[in-house]
Amino acid sequence: MKKYTSISDIDDLESIIREARGLKSHNPEYKVGTGKTLGMLFFNNSLRTRLSTEKAAKLLGMDVMIMNVDKDGWALEFEDGAVMNSDKAEHIKEAAAVLSQYCDIIAVRAFPGLKDKEKDESEHILNSFQKYASVPIVNLESATGHPLQALTDAITIQEFNQVERPKVVLSWAPHPKALPQSVANSFVEVMQRLDVDFVITNPEGYDLASHIKKDTRVEHDQEKAFEDADFVYVKNWSSYESYGEVLNVEKNWIVDQAKLKATNNAKVMHCLPVRRNVVIADDVLDSDNAIVIAQANNRTYAAQVVLKRILEC
Amino acid sequence: MKKYTSISDIDDLESIIREARGLKSHNPEYKVGTGKTLGMLFFNNSLRTRLSTEKAAKLLGMDVMIMNVDKDGWALEFEDGAVMNSDKAEHIKEAAAVLSQYCDIIAVRAFPGLKDKEKDESEHILNSFQKYASVPIVNLESATGHPLQALTDAITIQEFNQVERPKVVLSWAPHPKALPQSVANSFVEVMQRLDVDFVITNPEGYDLASHIKKDTRVEHDQEKAFEDADFVYVKNWSSYESYGEVLNVEKNWIVDQAKLKATNNAKVMHCLPVRRNVVIADDVLDSDNAIVIAQANNRTYAAQVVLKRILEC
Amino acid sequence: MKKYTSISDIDDLESIIREARGLKSHNPEYKVGTGKTLGMLFFNNSLRTRLSTEKAAKLLGMDVMIMNVDKDGWALEFEDGAVMNSDKAEHIKEAAAVLSQYCDIIAVRAFPGLKDKEKDESEHILNSFQKYASVPIVNLESATGHPLQALTDAITIQEFNQVERPKVVLSWAPHPKALPQSVANSFVEVMQRLDVDFVITNPEGYDLASHIKKDTRVEHDQEKAFEDADFVYVKNWSSYESYGEVLNVEKNWIVDQAKLKATNNAKVMHCLPVRRNVVIADDVLDSDNAIVIAQANNRTYAAQVVLKRILEC
Repeated sequence: MKKYTSISDIDDLESIIREARGLKSHNPEYKVGTGKTLGMLFFNNSLRTRLSTEKAAKLLGMDVMIMNVDKDGWALEFEDGAVMNSDKAEHIKEAAAVLSQYCDIIAVRAFPGLKDKEKDESEHILNSFQKYASVPIVNLESATGHPLQALTDAITIQEFNQVERPKVVLSWAPHPKALPQSVANSFVEVMQRLDVDFVITNPEGYDLASHIKKDTRVEHDQEKAFEDADFVYVKNWSSYESYGEVLNVEKNWIVDQAKLKATNNAKVMHCLPVRRNVVIADDVLDSDNAIVIAQANNRTYAAQVVLKRILEC
Repeated sequence: MKKYTSISDIDDLESIIREARGLKSHNPEYKVGTGKTLGMLFFNNSLRTRLSTEKAAKLLGMDVMIMNVDKDGWALEFEDGAVMNSDKAEHIKEAAAVLSQYCDIIAVRAFPGLKDKEKDESEHILNSFQKYASVPIVNLESATGHPLQALTDAITIQEFNQVERPKVVLSWAPHPKALPQSVANSFVEVMQRLDVDFVITNPEGYDLASHIKKDTRVEHDQEKAFEDADFVYVKNWSSYESYGEVLNVEKNWIVDQAKLKATNNAKVMHCLPVRRNVVIADDVLDSDNAIVIAQANNRTYAAQVVLKRILEC
Repeated sequence: MKKYTSISDIDDLESIIREARGLKSHNPEYKVGTGKTLGMLFFNNSLRTRLSTEKAAKLLGMDVMIMNVDKDGWALEFEDGAVMNSDKAEHIKEAAAVLSQYCDIIAVRAFPGLKDKEKDESEHILNSFQKYASVPIVNLESATGHPLQALTDAITIQEFNQVERPKVVLSWAPHPKALPQSVANSFVEVMQRLDVDFVITNPEGYDLASHIKKDTRVEHDQEKAFEDADFVYVKNWSSYESYGEVLNVEKNWIVDQAKLKATNNAKVMHCLPVRRNVVIADDVLDSDNAIVIAQANNRTYAAQVVLKRILEC
């Protein structure tokens, strides 16, 4: 694996899932990362991603250096040809090239601004690191994708699946703030590559980008979508059509036990953090239907298999 | 040891002190913490606690992951059943359960708000971690206790003691800000378990909680309390009776050389940070009476013995 | 080496440069830092210094503990005899003494205020750590010097030099903010000790302190200074004479390809971060003349040789 910036960097999804599940049950003594350094750069806050990736790297024997870039370092300029006489002290060209000398892999978290669709879709932060760094880049959630989460989700579905071809529903949920489409996008991309019956359900106005959803079925009636579902993946995202907006939605799209009745006793997933009783009700999160904690645990092994593949490359 | 959230988690105080002093003079090659991870979560600032605990863990061979929770992660909700449609992004239920999968021990610093006695005494942050985490919790100073400091203090008193049954005085001191009772509480609890002549001295209105001081003698005349003292432990705390308030005090309770004259050339202790010439005068801190630096050094070994005991459990 | 707070702590400049270049090509298996701890204290932001020093310490086998002092710890008091009843919670006397027990080497970054020349020149932060710590101090850029950068610069010049006695020009450059003289000062000090033809060029009013520049030639005509230069070291600094001020300068002192024409195809250096098209033009930074990335790489080996020498002491 040369880098891991999107789900499309995985050639052999089944084999990577198998390897991750193997690492989970038996972590090898042999440390492929000994003497190697992972640099983790955060432009935004993080709990799970930060700790699970740090842990994964250390399980491989790597040293880890963490920077909250804008808080602890210098504000970065990304525009080519900029005259830097304002608030940005360092250009990505230098920052990425220098970091490539201190680190063997650079991992970057950079959320979208959700104001300018074109700018967000250009992935200017992630792609600038890719362009100017000379070491592999790992995406810790970018403007439009969260491929470590999506790999985790695929691992978790395989782990909990008990039927031949499960029905998986990605359900939009309410949220007081405008959130990125990143998690949903990458989840869609990975589901499209597994042998599952995959449906997206969201209110009108919340359809994901057509280049993401492709020919995946979108059902605007949540109840109908939930029928016989084996897995319900719950996640809020802001509108893609009315870019970055939080639209008025008539019904309450929260996932609770009442709605699960139509499902095949579905397992309920969420990337976390989850707002209780807004996104998912306590009666689901505190029940056996919820597998969000086991799902979060798989973050470590998804990160480990990705870092391992990159180091072995 | 199953956890270390209060002094009462220590069954064998004498033996744990002996073991800590042994670690100080001879740190074993054998690393009981190899392959284990300590997660340190800070809801408040820290210097000594952070660095000494990090060092202790590394002396045991552990990996250490540090989070300034609210700054680097997500604001946490602690109320059961909360509808999370405001500023809190993650519930402690998920946070603690997830962290338990990434860490083998979770250490938490969470100061009291000093506004609501009942809430502080419920130790809602520390106890929520205990309730929802599946790994042992270590208290890095909570709303009402600082047991790592208290163990350090016991180690230090045994180390410096030169008489059969020393007189130990806990003396309140002035401070411009309202501080927790945590350090004083835990110090009282540990002194009650050592074979010492223990006296608390503080102005009227500053008596510690009766469930803490129990039948320990409280002397409101500082001069009288200091007579023949072998150890003077200096610490400010805000009023417990007039909860969280800084009361007017007529005399100046600062500890200086003039006041030490009545003592048995007492050793002077403080948990640090100490405000010079407010809490303790330069003429004491810069003299041989002060053992605050040696005391701070023992923080490492107190933390090490606690982590070691937990790992061996 | 007993400490590294200024270039004058190096006795044998040629040999230390040789050793650093050796570490770069072959990093020994033997870890002189095993079981030792580096404490890094930041009073100001840092990217390169932080990551390269952390990496250097880990290459030596050291554990590294990093504190953003004022953000994560307690505001420090530096005045002797201060009555600490205001915003400073801890005196440097205690902080330095305590840290000396947790760390084997303490590294400190503390920029000048640029308001009070006398205070800045007293190096009160760095020197207070030296005075009150009992372990060696390493300067990560202080009020008046940046000796790790200067050693890096000497290594880099030796590495890229192709003539017997190169002409090295330190050129002042424009910048929107008032910056310290630290990098320029230490660069001047190290150049004075190498066998180079060294010239400083800066606008009138920007001469460095006379105790720094000594008898080094200062040329106020940039074009003239650049004639036949082999190395051009570009750096902004605020006025020393009109202390901390940004003065009006008539010509544009930016370094671009047009200005390099007079040089001997000079290599262009900068400590980074560099403001593109303000300090140095894109046409230089994106050309083979710029060696700023290779220079930044040498930060690791400069730090490593310094830490190694201190550990071996």
